[in-house]
Formats: sequence, structure tokens, C-alpha cells
Amino acid sequence: MILRIDKLQIELPMPKEADPDAAAVVQELLGGRFGEMSTLMNYTFQSFNFRGKKELKPFYDLIANIGAEEYGHVELVAATVNALLNGASRKEDPSQTPLAPGLKARNTHHFIVTGQGALVANSMNTPWQGDYVFNSGDLVLDLLHNFFLECGARLHKIRVYEMTSNPVAREMIGYLLVRGGVHATAYAKALEILTGVNVTKMLPIPKIENSRFPEARKYEEAGQHRKLYRFSLEDYRDIVRIWKGTHPQDGQPLEVVDGTPPGGPQLDLDEAPEASIPGFAPEELHEIAQRLLKEL
Amino acid sequence: MILRIDKLQIELPMPKEADPDAAAVVQELLGGRFGEMSTLMNYTFQSFNFRGKKELKPFYDLIANIGAEEYGHVELVAATVNALLNGASRKEDPSQTPLAPGLKARNTHHFIVTGQGALVANSMNTPWQGDYVFNSGDLVLDLLHNFFLECGARLHKIRVYEMTSNPVAREMIGYLLVRGGVHATAYAKALEILTGVNVTKMLPIPKIENSRFPEARKYEEAGQHRKLYRFSLEDYRDIVRIWKGTHPQDGQPLEVVDGTPPGGPQLDLDEAPEASIPGFAPEELHEIAQRLLKEL
Amino acid sequence: MILRIDKLQIELPMPKEADPDAAAVVQELLGGRFGEMSTLMNYTFQSFNFRGKKELKPFYDLIANIGAEEYGHVELVAATVNALLNGASRKEDPSQTPLAPGLKARNTHHFIVTGQGALVANSMNTPWQGDYVFNSGDLVLDLLHNFFLECGARLHKIRVYEMTSNPVAREMIGYLLVRGGVHATAYAKALEILTGVNVTKMLPIPKIENSRFPEARKYEEAGQHRKLYRFSLEDYRDIVRIWKGTHPQDGQPLEVVDGTPPGGPQLDLDEAPEASIPGFAPEELHEIAQRLLKEL
Amino acid sequence: MILRIDKLQIELPMPKEADPDAAAVVQELLGGRFGEMSTLMNYTFQSFNFRGKKELKPFYDLIANIGAEEYGHVELVAATVNALLNGASRKEDPSQTPLAPGLKARNTHHFIVTGQGALVANSMNTPWQGDYVFNSGDLVLDLLHNFFLECGARLHKIRVYEMTSNPVAREMIGYLLVRGGVHATAYAKALEILTGVNVTKMLPIPKIENSRFPEARKYEEAGQHRKLYRFSLEDYRDIVRIWKGTHPQDGQPLEVVDGTPPGGPQLDLDEAPEASIPGFAPEELHEIAQRLLKEL
Amino acid sequence: MILRIDKLQIELPMPKEADPDAAAVVQELLGGRFGEMSTLMNYTFQSFNFRGKKELKPFYDLIANIGAEEYGHVELVAATVNALLNGASRKEDPSQTPLAPGLKARNTHHFIVTGQGALVANSMNTPWQGDYVFNSGDLVLDLLHNFFLECGARLHKIRVYEMTSNPVAREMIGYLLVRGGVHATAYAKALEILTGVNVTKMLPIPKIENSRFPEARKYEEAGQHRKLYRFSLEDYRDIVRIWKGTHPQDGQPLEVVDGTPPGGPQLDLDEAPEASIPGFAPEELHEIAQRLLKEL
Amino acid sequence: MILRIDKLQIELPMPKEADPDAAAVVQELLGGRFGEMSTLMNYTFQSFNFRGKKELKPFYDLIANIGAEEYGHVELVAATVNALLNGASRKEDPSQTPLAPGLKARNTHHFIVTGQGALVANSMNTPWQGDYVFNSGDLVLDLLHNFFLECGARLHKIRVYEMTSNPVAREMIGYLLVRGGVHATAYAKALEILTGVNVTKMLPIPKIENSRFPEARKYEEAGQHRKLYRFSLEDYRDIVRIWKGTHPQDGQPLEVVDGTPPGGPQLDLDEAPEASIPGFAPEELHEIAQRLLKEL
Repeated sequence: MILRIDKLQIELPMPKEADPDAAAVVQELLGGRFGEMSTLMNYTFQSFNFRGKKELKPFYDLIANIGAEEYGHVELVAATVNALLNGASRKEDPSQTPLAPGLKARNTHHFIVTGQGALVANSMNTPWQGDYVFNSGDLVLDLLHNFFLECGARLHKIRVYEMTSNPVAREMIGYLLVRGGVHATAYAKALEILTGVNVTKMLPIPKIENSRFPEARKYEEAGQHRKLYRFSLEDYRDIVRIWKGTHPQDGQPLEVVDGTPPGGPQLDLDEAPEASIPGFAPEELHEIAQRLLKEL
Repeated sequence: MILRIDKLQIELPMPKEADPDAAAVVQELLGGRFGEMSTLMNYTFQSFNFRGKKELKPFYDLIANIGAEEYGHVELVAATVNALLNGASRKEDPSQTPLAPGLKARNTHHFIVTGQGALVANSMNTPWQGDYVFNSGDLVLDLLHNFFLECGARLHKIRVYEMTSNPVAREMIGYLLVRGGVHATAYAKALEILTGVNVTKMLPIPKIENSRFPEARKYEEAGQHRKLYRFSLEDYRDIVRIWKGTHPQDGQPLEVVDGTPPGGPQLDLDEAPEASIPGFAPEELHEIAQRLLKEL
Repeated sequence: MILRIDKLQIELPMPKEADPDAAAVVQELLGGRFGEMSTLMNYTFQSFNFRGKKELKPFYDLIANIGAEEYGHVELVAATVNALLNGASRKEDPSQTPLAPGLKARNTHHFIVTGQGALVANSMNTPWQGDYVFNSGDLVLDLLHNFFLECGARLHKIRVYEMTSNPVAREMIGYLLVRGGVHATAYAKALEILTGVNVTKMLPIPKIENSRFPEARKYEEAGQHRKLYRFSLEDYRDIVRIWKGTHPQDGQPLEVVDGTPPGGPQLDLDEAPEASIPGFAPEELHEIAQRLLKEL
Repeated sequence: MILRIDKLQIELPMPKEADPDAAAVVQELLGGRFGEMSTLMNYTFQSFNFRGKKELKPFYDLIANIGAEEYGHVELVAATVNALLNGASRKEDPSQTPLAPGLKARNTHHFIVTGQGALVANSMNTPWQGDYVFNSGDLVLDLLHNFFLECGARLHKIRVYEMTSNPVAREMIGYLLVRGGVHATAYAKALEILTGVNVTKMLPIPKIENSRFPEARKYEEAGQHRKLYRFSLEDYRDIVRIWKGTHPQDGQPLEVVDGTPPGGPQLDLDEAPEASIPGFAPEELHEIAQRLLKEL
Repeated sequence: MILRIDKLQIELPMPKEADPDAAAVVQELLGGRFGEMSTLMNYTFQSFNFRGKKELKPFYDLIANIGAEEYGHVELVAATVNALLNGASRKEDPSQTPLAPGLKARNTHHFIVTGQGALVANSMNTPWQGDYVFNSGDLVLDLLHNFFLECGARLHKIRVYEMTSNPVAREMIGYLLVRGGVHATAYAKALEILTGVNVTKMLPIPKIENSRFPEARKYEEAGQHRKLYRFSLEDYRDIVRIWKGTHPQDGQPLEVVDGTPPGGPQLDLDEAPEASIPGFAPEELHEIAQRLLKEL
Repeated sequence: MILRIDKLQIELPMPKEADPDAAAVVQELLGGRFGEMSTLMNYTFQSFNFRGKKELKPFYDLIANIGAEEYGHVELVAATVNALLNGASRKEDPSQTPLAPGLKARNTHHFIVTGQGALVANSMNTPWQGDYVFNSGDLVLDLLHNFFLECGARLHKIRVYEMTSNPVAREMIGYLLVRGGVHATAYAKALEILTGVNVTKMLPIPKIENSRFPEARKYEEAGQHRKLYRFSLEDYRDIVRIWKGTHPQDGQPLEVVDGTPPGGPQLDLDEAPEASIPGFAPEELHEIAQRLLKEL
């Protein structure tokens, strides 16, 4: 079970104007094979299906807990897509062409299928698919997969960063590079405990330090790369059996933090009445709001 | 963001023996177009993409909060699949045929691809896909979709119930029929507020009362069909603007309950060393456990 | 069985020049999940699979008959795509670059895979798929689905309208908005008869009147929104049991019309010899025509 | 546009008992790559997209007209699937296991997703897809495709025939083998006219005569293999420019028949109230029927 | 089994600058339904699955041997895609936007998912799929398929040629038009031997001679259209039983050539360190190279 | 380019009788995400797309060369599927039910779509897809992927071994376990050279030694696990820069062998005339054979 907290993991800036092509490209980080839907669902299902929980509880806790964090990453990328699509349609009468910008945009489904919001799809509009989840039941193999998945996800994040200088995209990517680094390191450490192989030494993959990206650097300077949040009130306490010792790159002590990061507010997204989003005239909206208040 | 609670929404019985074909069929309720992955992801993404949150906050709260409950439903169906696969392989040496039961089982991927665990796929092994998410941005249309989705999901649950008498499957379905009924009613009420049409009167669809099924009846007798849990510590309080008044079928008062249901323990799933699940000999498992404890 | 009539449901204007990106976007209304292939195939298969025809014949007749009309809608959207692609290639020798316009067009398959004609795919080139057909066998649920499908289709039509001012696209959409409105109303009325719930009151979804669009308004002014054509010589007469009374929006009497609308001619589409469409030099074409005439 | 005729192309026998595995296998002939959905949609879209209609009208007429016949073939295979699923569920209370037969059946979706009816999918439940349509715009290539498609479809029909001796399946296949033979021959003749190559001489592919199958032989003895029906009241008259001369195998004169074959009645399919098909208790069904009659 | 030869089938020119949209379009010839992956895999699997090898050995040899040539065609198209993507990213620091060209490019996956290299996908990024392989086991039908496949592939090649004048694309297409012509002719001759029908007379399909394209003409002038290479040291000698006599278009004698064409060098593709391709700084690259040499 | 050698990598026994369910399951090792099509295509495309070949030639050579070996692995698994399907149909007249065994078999497509031969699909008939190819361009990441892919492939092989005791399946798996072990070790060594991390120490994954399986043990006893074959006449010589030193498990010296393994004969697969495989009566077969000989 989960409890939701109606906040984003960080404070996200709203762009000044819509940037639909950047929105389309950022979708790769949401619904691509190496996007956040994949990290969320891989770790979540690996935790659901875990056998041998008693002896291997710290590994169960680690996977389950990182899965919980990934929910917020999906949320953050979705918020970014929404921000990039904010104001994407023109303020025109429906009988004019308020959605003309969609005709030339990379992804028409942002304009036709969603209400200028995030799709569960990648940058070429291929939907995310359940068979992106790898869960063999062999713990070493599953952890090796997770380590590889985090490294692949990191490469994709860097490349999307290199495609757009839009500040909202870069803020999100900067943060996720650091958090993804924590996860890659955590899985590497888990593998080290199980196999004795010094996997952390491989990192970072690709061999470009997070500090090269200003938006990531600031989160590292705040020590985010050494913190593993425990996304639970009561559970997953045994992650301390794995997330311990020092960071393989900077040698500073690793830390488990109880609870979520402080986070930032959900975005306040504009309505787009010309495209029936959310589908009420201002007077109707007001009236419904009044009705809801009164009727209790 | 979310906090995970390491419990199932109900107490689930473990079957005495493996039932791989039932496991295969139950997958429809997890990864089918009308399975719990669909309800989870539809409502979650509708909440991520919601525009016009200020005036329509109760609707946002409702969708976001039901989305939170659905996470636990995915978890519950996954636990059922795992329970049905518990002991599915024979305790034989790998050089014998410990996985022979898989040769005739409906879904070979339960034996080859997963560690005798849940797939993110339906009863014919088609993976769940991101384009099962409907999110037009038009609130009435999205709620109409959700109402339809819940009714379709209910039909599938009933039909899977009618296919297997396995107690773990029926316990799960009984509970979810009641909870799905709450969601269908909630969306119907939301539509009523927005359109003035008495949608709740259509229920139940299909026209078979939950009380026909003993495993559902007991949850209704406990009043579960009138409770909407608020899966959040601080947020989504405005669901009371919609979940109010009386239940359309029994006329009893509706109730918002803060927090999750009490729930039951996660299942204790057997290891299957013959298939490398989780991939350690008993002595290795013990040794790793010791090492984890010592190393802190 | 069917009899084909070699006419379009309306007279469609030919655009002055090719508009490949509009053609690509219009594909959503043909092969998208809410496109005309979906309405055609949903109702057609629901009629093929209908059980309980004796007692429920009017509902069978309604679904079967609307399915027949949808065939003409697929045809109309396909004609629109063809019209928008007419003249899309340059009149150049094959050794030059007559298909250069395709290099930058949204959908390369219009230029490589088809002969500058309609694809059975959506606006992002995802092929239409048989699992877009919903047919549970539960009549209320199937009708609820159909009602939802028509509303979703309507939203997509409006949004494509808002993306392009091309007259051929808008003429087609104007007409289909009105006809789709008839279908939504018919399914709503069927649901009212079965459940007693006043579903028609929800319409239109989205809440933008057809009359806002000049190309739809003219068809409403001609009373098209009140007519249900009976696409059969002898059958489906019981649709009058459902399509009766007055129109929920304008209060005027509903009418069943025997036979098809008068319709307009099939388009006369240009050949594109530079791309081997249809693949004969003018002299060969003439010769073949002569041979066909002579050989009888 | 089309007019529907509420009859099947032949009289189809109802099997004495359900045969769900045969139903599953017959799906290949409906929604497989070489199934009737493919022949229907290939020829239909080729006719929609035809360029150069003036000089090549007989070819347009031929493709369009065969497309019209294929609609009835889809209908016939769907009826066969329905017949094979008739009575597939047990007459038990929903709280028992009326759908237990589905647990071991090849295709669970016949029991969960449809109301024991036809899916738009193949024998392994892969949905039919729009990219099974081939339409290059080059007429010779399109006709070569159609010729190949008919031969492939013929092989699949023979192999499904060889898998099941169920009379309803064999009656349908016997008829379609003969009709498919007409189409293969027609496309071969069209190719001969265009290229001068004696394509009809290749037939039959595979090299097993229809007369080997009793259910096909009787239709050949009735001369069905020499008749091309003209599925239109007014149009497609120029098919006589191609369907003329003698049959390549038996040397008897070919014949164009105006209108459809006489056909047989639609099947009367049983309700399955235990699975909510169509979802009304007998008393409700009667009441609704009365209401519909009275309300006019 | 195979032996690889590290050469391309021809000498391929490197373009002066990147042309990502041409690269995207050329993908159709690699991973499209009619691309080289399809020809490779169709013939390869037909040879793997061949039954009746003893009596039909020349046909087995023909299919197996052409399958071997197709490997080199996939390689050649992949090299072309790589050439067209060479230099596609800007030489900027990762914190700038070196991949900005990808934001507007047809296919984002060339920039995010691959290292600016070929995808196993078509021009709309749909992945190549195993069900593009047709292999019925009926030899005439399989050969008819192969003949059709070659003609469809030829049309696609011509249309891609007509979309771009990029010399590297045209050199590759010119060569493959000629080689594809050999394969179409070979399959036509095989069909002639088996059926007595003069299939070669249909060629070329589409009816545009290779000699219309300068890049193809030069290969024909070198007699390439009359040569069938035997891609084996010891095997497939019986292709001479089919590839014999004279060329159906120019009447010159056909020839079997033992071994591969002389070919040209593999391309020397630039690194793209800004996108971590291959992921080492120049100094690291040098160091690794040294280490590899020393360590033996 | 390649040269084909018409032999299998090992001598494969023919089973005494058909075993269609084993054939269906073995498909996972051919067309599954971790099947041999994936290893073949991953390494082949990684070699096609390799940038930085000059400094990193040994890595290029390694990947290209292992890709060449994988072709033979696909061939070997395909041969196994064919062997398991040999004699799968009954020797009956087509008008009887010679394909009745297919009605209950796992995969109907072995009986309808192929000529009782291998599909390019997995054990649930999902086609292999081009997006199973991972090729980021970052060499460390690509090698990490390859290492993970080999380990996943190994797990699937072991599990299929555990599902069936059919000797042909086990012979093939035994051999491929050993060869896959070579590849996993080779990629591990490549990673060690590039990163300094002792990756080979992780092996084997899963932690079940090949020697546990008699069919694998015999190949290890013959030293196959220490040999890397060089599948080229002239190229890929620099694999010795990586495949050197001693085997991480047994400490014996590693060896590069020029050329392929000696291999065994292609299987002699039975015809199945009842299903038109290959589609000629014995007298026709003989006649064609004679004609081919004479006509030269």
C-alpha cells in the first residue's frame, strides 16, 4: 500500500513559453525503455515477487524502497512534460485553429489524445510496455539488471539534457542524474556484498561526472548523492545494511534519511478552454466549485 | 511522492498447492486492459496531468486518491499470482526436470522469465501498455472513462471468479469487487455533480450484485462498500465534497476514512532453489545474512 | 453481407494543393483508437457476436445499422487523406527527387509504403489494432462503451479541426461531428431505455456545441442531427423502437430515413507516375483500357 | 457506403456442443495476417486509395467488389467462432464456476473479454493490425500481393480444416476455399491482362484441389467456383472486363452474377446469463421487449 | 555457420555533412517490412526450416545462398545510416547542447538510444518484427512470397531514392536495385521451373528500369545484374541448376560467381565524445590501446 | 559480408517422435528477448555501428566475432525446433485431420503458419523485435549490456532445460551453455580491461555450474569453455588481445581457434505432404529433380 504526498520531489520552475518538441523528447525519460516508468515498475514488481525475504531482507528493503522513490521520479518527469506543454495552444475560438502548433509538433498525441499532458510513452510515442520489466527471481541477476538499467537511464538523461537547454527540463534532469547515481551505487553495493566484486568502481557510466552539469552539481554540493531516503513510515529499515560506508567517488559517509525529501509544490498548470481542458467555461467552473462547497 | 507501507490491503490465504493455470488467468486482473495496472495508471496520470486544479480540486483529489488505492490493488493481485505459483516447480536437481510443470502450463513465462512471480501482462501474456491510459483533459470525458473502466474491470473480475474456485483468487476478487464498486460509485457521483445526470442508478454493471459472491458479501457486511479511504497523511481532503450522502444501493451513509485499511501481512513466499530463486544455496543465504548484520 | 454503393456520404471538395502534414494528422480520425475504424469494427463485431437477439432485437438492429454507417465514415476520412495527399509528389523524373516533400513530411509511409493514400494507422503511424474492439457481451456495458467511444471520437475530431483549416478536412469533420452526435444520442437513448438513467442529458461531450463550427452547423441546419439512416434494404427496421421521440437538444422530432444519404461522388484522384502510381505510362494506360474493352 | 443484408453467405449448421479450442484455432482465419480481416481491409483500402480510376476502372471495380464480398467472409468466420463457443459456459450460479471450461481453453479472452464471441485476433490472440494492409499504389504490385494473399489464405484454411473435423468449421472452410479460389483466379486474370504472364496456370496453391474436401466439392459441383457475385446495386459493372472467358481448371464459362448469393439465416446464439451475456434476467428481457414495443 | 568478412559489398562514399532526416528515411530499407532485415531473415529461416532438401536441393541452395548475400545488404544499409549520421552532433561541451540537432530530427532515437547509428527499425521507428518472416513450408508459396517481397523492396528503394539525393544513400540504393533485381529474377526462374509459368516476364516491378538511375546503371553496365555470387566456400553449388540460361531483359548469359564480390572497406566512423561515443577521452583511448598491446 | 557453411555447430540427435510442446518452449531460446536472435542482432548491430574502431579494434573484433558465432546458435536452436516438430502431423489424407495434434499444441502457428518449422518468436509466440537490440555507442555500457544479456540467456537456457528432458533440446542447451559461458567471460574480460573491475568473478550467473548438466559437462571436458573460435578467414585477429590468460573458473589457458568448430551435418527433416510441405507429391518431386539436372 502507499500513502501519497501531494508534492514534487523538488521545486520545478515553470517555463515562460511552451516548448512542445522538448516535451516530446523528454517523454523518453518517462515512458522509454530506460525511462522512469521502467525503473518504477522494475523495482516495484521485483519487490512484489521477492522470494526468500527472510534471509535477504536488506535486499528486499532496498529494491522496494528505491521503487517507492521512483514513483516520485515518474511524477517529476510528467510535471516537466506538462510544464513544457503549458500554453501550447493558442487562445483562439475553436472554429479558428487554436491547436495549429500541434500540426508541426513532434508528437500530435500531446494535442489530440491528452490534454496537453504527459503520455505513458517514449520520445517516438511508443507506449511503455510491461515487458520492459525484468524480474528473473535470481537476485544477483536482478541486481545486475537494475545496475545496468540505471546506467542506461543515466545515458539517456544526459543525451536529452544535451538536446534542450530548456530550464525546466534541465532542472529535472540535474536532480534525477544525482538520484539515479544513488540508485546505481546502491545496486552496485548490493552486488558487492553478494559477489565480492567491486562494482562501484565502474561508476559513473557513461564516464561523464554529474558535476559537469550545473543543475546536477548543485544537488551534489548539497550532499544529495550520499543520501538514501527511506520512503516509508515504518518499513524498509534494513536498507542501512547496504547503504553504509562511504561514497565510492568522494569518500564521504553515506546516509539513510527517514522520510521523503522536503520537495516542492505541484505545478499550477493553465487551463486550455479552447481545447476543452478541463472542459468548463469560467462561469461553469465557478458554479461547480460553489456547488461542491455548498452541498456537504 | 509516496510512502510505502509493507502490507497488503487484506489478509490473503496461501493455497495448499500451486495452481499455475489459475495464476495465468488471474494475470488478466493485473495487466489486462481492464486490470489494476490500468486503473492505477489511468488515475495516477490523470492526477499528474490535471489542469484547473484550483476550481476543481475535489475532482483532482478524488482521482489522485483513488489512484493511490489502486497501487495496493496491483500489489494484491500480484500477491495472488505469487501465491498461486508457490511451489509450482518440483524439488528436483536442475539436471532432472524440476520445471516440467511449466511445459503444460498456460504461461511459460511464469517459469522461464519470472521467478514464478507476477508478470506485467494479461492472461494471454500480452504486456500491459501505456496506451491503455486514457486522459483527454476534458474532465467529464475522463470521469466517464473511469466509470466505464471500473465497470469493465468488474465484469472481468466476475468472470475470472467464475473460472476458478481457488480460495486465494476468490478472496482477492471478493475484496476488489467491493472496492471497485466504491470507485465506480465515486466516479458516478462526480459525474452527477458535474452533469446533473443520475449515473449511480446504472450500477451495478454487470447487473449481478456483489452479495451474490460470498467473498464479496462479507466485505459489504463489514461496510467496506461505503468507505472511501484517504491514502494520504495530509492531502486529498476534498474527497469529502464528492464522497458524501448515502450509498445508492443500500441508502446507508458514505464515509471517508483517514488512512489506509488495516490490511494484512505480505505473503511469505517459498524459495525455489531448483530454479535459482533467489539463487543461493541455504548455506550461502545464511552466510550473506550474517555478513549483512556484521558489516554495519 | 453488404452491397457497396460507389459514393461518398457527402460531396467533398478537392484542395488546391497537397497538405501532407494535415493528411498525417487526419489519420488519427481513421486509424486511431477513437477513429472510424474503431467505430466501424466495434459495432460490426458487436452485431456479429450479439446473443439474445430475439428479445433485444431493437438494440441489435441499432448497433448493426450504425456499424453500417461507419463504413462510409472510414471511406470519407480515407478520401480526405487522399485529397490532402493529391499532388504531394513533384512532377520530376525518378532520377531527380520527386518525393523530396516526403523527407520532411510527418508520415514517411504516405510516400514510401502507400501510393500517397490512406494508411490504416493513426496520426503517429501506429497501426489500428483489433484489440481496440470492445465487446463484452453485456449489453449495458457495451452500450456504455459505445457512448464513451463516440464522445472520445468527438473530442478528437474537434481537436483535429482545431489543428488545420484545410477545407477538405473541415468539411469532413463538420459532417462527422453531426453524424457522431446522432450515434452518441442513439446509444444514450438505448441506455435510457435499459437503465432508466437520463444519459442524453450529458451531451454534448465535450461541452462545445456543433453549431460553433460552420461546417457542422450547416448540416444541423439541414436537420442531419435528427436523422438516423437505415443502411439496409430489408433489415434493421426496429431501430425505430429506439430512435424516436424528440432530439434532446433542440426538441425537434427524430426521424428514421430508409436508405443512405444522397451522398456525393468518389474523388477523382490524380495519378503520380513519378512514384509508379498506378505504375503505367499514359500510352500503356490507354492500351490496357483498349484491350479490356476489346477482349470481352 | 454500404447497405447491410442481415444474412450469412451460406447456411451454417450449429454444432451440438461447444468446442472452444476449435473456436480458438478458427480465429486464425478471421484475424490472422492471412485471415478475412486482411482480405477485407486490403481490398477495401486499395479501392479507397485507387488512383487512375478512369483508365483502369475494371481493376478498380474488381478490387472494390471483391472487398465487398470479403465483408461477408469476416461475418461468416465470426459466426463460426460464435457457433463453436455456443454453450461454452456451464449453467451454474455465478458463485460456482460456470466459466471453468475457460481455465483450460486455448483462448481465455473468449471467456473473459468477449461474451463467448469472436475476437479481432488470430489463433494465438494477437490482434489484427492495420499494417497487414498492403497498398503500394502500383497496380501490378498490389494485384501480385492480392494473388499471394489469397494463396496464403488458402493454405491457412486447409491447415485449419486439417486440425478440426467440427462440421461448422468445415462447412465454412469448404465454402471459403471455393470463394477464395474465385478471388485468386480473378487477381491472376487481372495480372494476365496487365502483364501477359499466364498466372492462372500456377493455381491452385497449395497444389491440393478443392475437390479433395467434401465440403468444398459440393460448392464446386454447384458451380460456385465460376461465379463472381457483383455486391452492388448499381456499381462495379466493369468486372465483366476481367471475369470472362473460361475457368482455368475446368474450362467452363465464367459468370458474373448480379447481387449477392442467396445466403442463409444469421445464427440464433444462446444467451449465457451466468456470464452476464447479454446481462438481463429472463423477466427483465421480456419487460424490456414489452417496453420497446409500447413506447413507439 | 558463417564466416564474416570485414568488408562492405561496395565502396561507399562518406557524405560531407550529416543528414539525419535522410538517415531516418533510409531506415525503411533496413528495418521496414520490405527492408533488408526482412529479406535476410525470410531466406535464412526458410533455409533453416527447409523440408525435402534431397529432391529440392537446388531450391534450398538458392534460398540459403541469397540469404547469405542479404546479410551484406543489411550491413550496407546500416553503414549508410551511420554515414548519414556522421557528425550529427555538435562539438560542444555536454553542458551545452551538442545534441540539439536531434530535437528537430525525424528520429530522436538516433540521438538518444543509439550512438548515432542504425536502428533495427523502419523510417517511422517501428522495430523490425519476427512475424515479417513468411515461411509456410509450401515451396511454391514461399517462392511466390519471395518474388513479391523483392518487388515490394524494389519499390521502396526507388521511393527512398526519390526522396533524397544524398550520394551515399543513392550509391547504396543503386547497387541494391541491381542485386535485388538478381534475386527477383532468380526467384522468378525457380517458380518457372516448378510451375511452368513465365514469371520473369513480369519484371521489372515497378515498371521503371534500373537503367533510369545512374547509380544503378553503372552496376548493370558492369554486368552485376547477371551474376549470382555463391557466398560459400563449399556449399550451395546447385544454384547453377536455377541460375542458368540468359537474362530475361538483356538476353546475355547468366553467371554464377564463386565467392563474394570484391567489396569495399568498412567505413571509418567518427567518434562523438560529446555524446559518450565510444565513451573515452582521447587520452584514455590511447592508454587502453597501449594496455591491450602490452598485456598479451 | 558472410560466407555460409552448411553445417550445424554440433551433431544434433533426431528425436524418435515429435514433441510440439517442447518445440514451443524451446522457441524462447530462439526468439525471446534473451534468445539467440537477440545475441546475434545485438552484437551484429553493435559491430555495424561501432565508432572509434582504430583505438578500440580488439573490442570491435570481439563483438563482431561473437556476433558471427551467434548466427550458428540461431541455426542450432532452429534445427532443434524443427527436430522436435519432425513428424508432428499424422500421415492422413487432407480430408481427415492430419493436423489434429496442433489443436492442443502450445503453438498453433507451428502447424498453420510455418511448415512445422521454427518461428522468429518466443515461447508465447511474441515475435522477436528489433528494439531488443541495445546499442548505446558507449562501449562500457554496451559491454555491460552484453554481459547481462549472456547471463539472462543462460538462466533461460537452464530453465528450459529443466522443463524438458528431450535429448535434442538438452544436447543443444548443453552446448550453448558452454558457448554462452565463453561469451559471458569474454565480455567480462573486456570490461575488466576497460574498467579494472574484476567482473569475471561474478560468474557463473545463475550460480549453477555448467558441470551440473551432463550435456554441458561433456563439452567442458573437451575444453570448449576455453576456446574462442575466430569465425573469419582474415579478420578479427585482435580478439587475442582480450581472450588471453587463463579461464577464471578452472585456471587453464584460454585459446583462440582459427575457424569454426568442426560441427555436424544439417538435419534431414521429413516432408509432410499432408500439410503441403514442401507441396509436391513424390512423383512430382522426382520429376522436378530430373528436370533440374537435365536442363543445365
